[in-house]
Amino acid sequence: MIKNIKKIYLDYAATTPVDPRVIQRMFPFFSEKFGNATALYSFGQEAKAALEESRGQVSNLIGAKPNEIIFTSSATESNNLALKGIGLANKEKDRHIIISSIEHPSIMESARWLETQGFKITRLPVDKYGLVNLYNLKEAIKKNTILVSIIYASNEIGTIQPIKEIGEAIKRKSESLNLKSKIYFHTDAVQSFGKIPIDVNKMEIDLLSASSHKMYGPKGAACLFVREGTKIEPVLHGGGQESGLRSSTVNVSAIVGFGMACKICKREMKEEAQKQIKLRDKLIKEVLEKIPGSHLNGSPSSRLRRASHSQKRLPNNVNFRFEFVEGESIVIQLDLLGIAASTGSACSSTKLEPSHVLLAIGLKHEQAHGSLRLTLGRWTKESEINYLLKLLPGVIKRLREISGKT
Amino acid sequence: MIKNIKKIYLDYAATTPVDPRVIQRMFPFFSEKFGNATALYSFGQEAKAALEESRGQVSNLIGAKPNEIIFTSSATESNNLALKGIGLANKEKDRHIIISSIEHPSIMESARWLETQGFKITRLPVDKYGLVNLYNLKEAIKKNTILVSIIYASNEIGTIQPIKEIGEAIKRKSESLNLKSKIYFHTDAVQSFGKIPIDVNKMEIDLLSASSHKMYGPKGAACLFVREGTKIEPVLHGGGQESGLRSSTVNVSAIVGFGMACKICKREMKEEAQKQIKLRDKLIKEVLEKIPGSHLNGSPSSRLRRASHSQKRLPNNVNFRFEFVEGESIVIQLDLLGIAASTGSACSSTKLEPSHVLLAIGLKHEQAHGSLRLTLGRWTKESEINYLLKLLPGVIKRLREISGKT
Repeated sequence: MIKNIKKIYLDYAATTPVDPRVIQRMFPFFSEKFGNATALYSFGQEAKAALEESRGQVSNLIGAKPNEIIFTSSATESNNLALKGIGLANKEKDRHIIISSIEHPSIMESARWLETQGFKITRLPVDKYGLVNLYNLKEAIKKNTILVSIIYASNEIGTIQPIKEIGEAIKRKSESLNLKSKIYFHTDAVQSFGKIPIDVNKMEIDLLSASSHKMYGPKGAACLFVREGTKIEPVLHGGGQESGLRSSTVNVSAIVGFGMACKICKREMKEEAQKQIKLRDKLIKEVLEKIPGSHLNGSPSSRLRRASHSQKRLPNNVNFRFEFVEGESIVIQLDLLGIAASTGSACSSTKLEPSHVLLAIGLKHEQAHGSLRLTLGRWTKESEINYLLKLLPGVIKRLREISGKT
Repeated sequence: MIKNIKKIYLDYAATTPVDPRVIQRMFPFFSEKFGNATALYSFGQEAKAALEESRGQVSNLIGAKPNEIIFTSSATESNNLALKGIGLANKEKDRHIIISSIEHPSIMESARWLETQGFKITRLPVDKYGLVNLYNLKEAIKKNTILVSIIYASNEIGTIQPIKEIGEAIKRKSESLNLKSKIYFHTDAVQSFGKIPIDVNKMEIDLLSASSHKMYGPKGAACLFVREGTKIEPVLHGGGQESGLRSSTVNVSAIVGFGMACKICKREMKEEAQKQIKLRDKLIKEVLEKIPGSHLNGSPSSRLRRASHSQKRLPNNVNFRFEFVEGESIVIQLDLLGIAASTGSACSSTKLEPSHVLLAIGLKHEQAHGSLRLTLGRWTKESEINYLLKLLPGVIKRLREISGKT
């Protein structure tokens, strides 16, 4: 490695560093205020009070009530709890669940497991930008449908679904079918939570998954919003913590950090998004202009197309495709230059299969292998984007020369 | 509250403060070495290396191979994974699982859930000290038995089971039945892990649960030891981390802390246990002598009875029963005097039912309600035990006066 190399992190969608303000808030809960939150004595009550304060901070970010927040250890656990918890609690014959074809593996694999338990799963296609079609969704909802789970914003291509319209469509269809029980709407909001405004009531969301370590909180804390009155079963059984829905000694220090991270996002989200959109659009514009055979995966950004499209892409997400180049090779070359980037989701990065999301938006196998995801964050500077813009054309050129396809 | 009150923590079995050496080791993983351990670039590889170092430290404490350690978020999750994972992976007709009647709620409730899925569960009784009878165990094992799960040491009364004899008995019975597949032996070792020597090979253990926050590591990290070749399914589905057995972004900072906590225990366990046994036995002896109508729940300690009994009680566990007094009232009174204690397990402390463990050792309802658990730890001083010994007789006396039963 070259000495004095820059270290530039452009993989904020995989995980974020913890905000120093969050660490400061967490710190006393390791060795001083370490009590078990279910204990009777003051050590425990102190932990319990901190836990409930965090519950308020988390719920406040999405317009929920504090008692509708169930803390879990990870978004994977939240997604498992949403799908299996709703599935197993509503397990009559021929039950039907709808998901999109661009969900996170924790949704896809939970759905696959439910299939082995006798559930029927519909996987909705998406258009070339990654959007679910509302007409298709309404057509797919049947009398035996118990749950629709659609990812809020894609972790790979950053496409934001029309969540409010989806929520309303499910509600209307559910009412028109005159069902005894509600069709629940779950959304995996891991990438949008803390980045764009969410209101679970206005959007008719019944369940929502979010994760602390994607928004400057620590790993090990996450939540599932569960609307009051929802018929759901636990996935982890035991002492009955978290209203019986998530047994386990509560991880107070991590949850306190999660709460603090929510508080910061609530305050700084708007300004942060504006800053990131500016850098994102500069990055997209210049790469598409400077590098021949480069394409943007997902929804076009505002500067380039219609303004409305900007609303359909996460402020911090860029996903390119470069003809005749493997995404993995780009990631390795960038790493040698001190830049951390990704080919797709962190979860699939050690696998060799092309991204199911890129295949779902209509890319061919070889096209899907040529993708590069760059995700910006709280500490991304314009100078870092400029550094990347200076180096990336050369990296792509050299890789094309090696493969002999220029 | 009285000013300048002492703060004495005697509930180490509920949760422990994090050792400062552990916090120091964890610290860089929040904001510097925060990479996603599945990522290709150096940020991720650095996290991955730390993760694997921790896996070695954890496995080293119980004589396992590093690849036999699956990291989870809590012992509750490990116990759920052990029971349901083995159950669902070996789910033919009439499958049978044996547990003891003094298991942790996460084992009992997982077993109850498996019953709803068609599994047969046998709950073995225990004697007045909380010990499982080997003859009963061997009798209970049938041709359709797939798993035996026995808690290593009771979280409430501290009784240590004859784990080696249990492991050998299961193996011999399994061989004599000439079964196609092995009968697996799981033990919930949360209270003994890091406190007394464990060897999964000598003890014929196939699966073992342990938790970081019970042995001076952080909350949010735990593990399940799974012997190579074990037929087991995941409980959480998703990206396929931890050899496909536990999907979720790996909580590196917590796991690094867990590893460090294991390293410290490995080195200091023997000396720590000797120190705690001395304080424990002093506490038991003096309370039984000083306070009329006081009894010890669980196995007698060495100073009082035969030396062999000392081996059957955790070095840090004391569990008393006081006639005509509610345990909860004692805990509240001690809290006012700055002493944190517990009536039983932390998990059940907000419930009103008497402890199932105390009922299982033959106590009547009113007796079970009169129990007080005091658990010592790394930083328990003799002066703290003396302080408790000075105050406890008065507390019990006053409570008896209030209830009018002296």
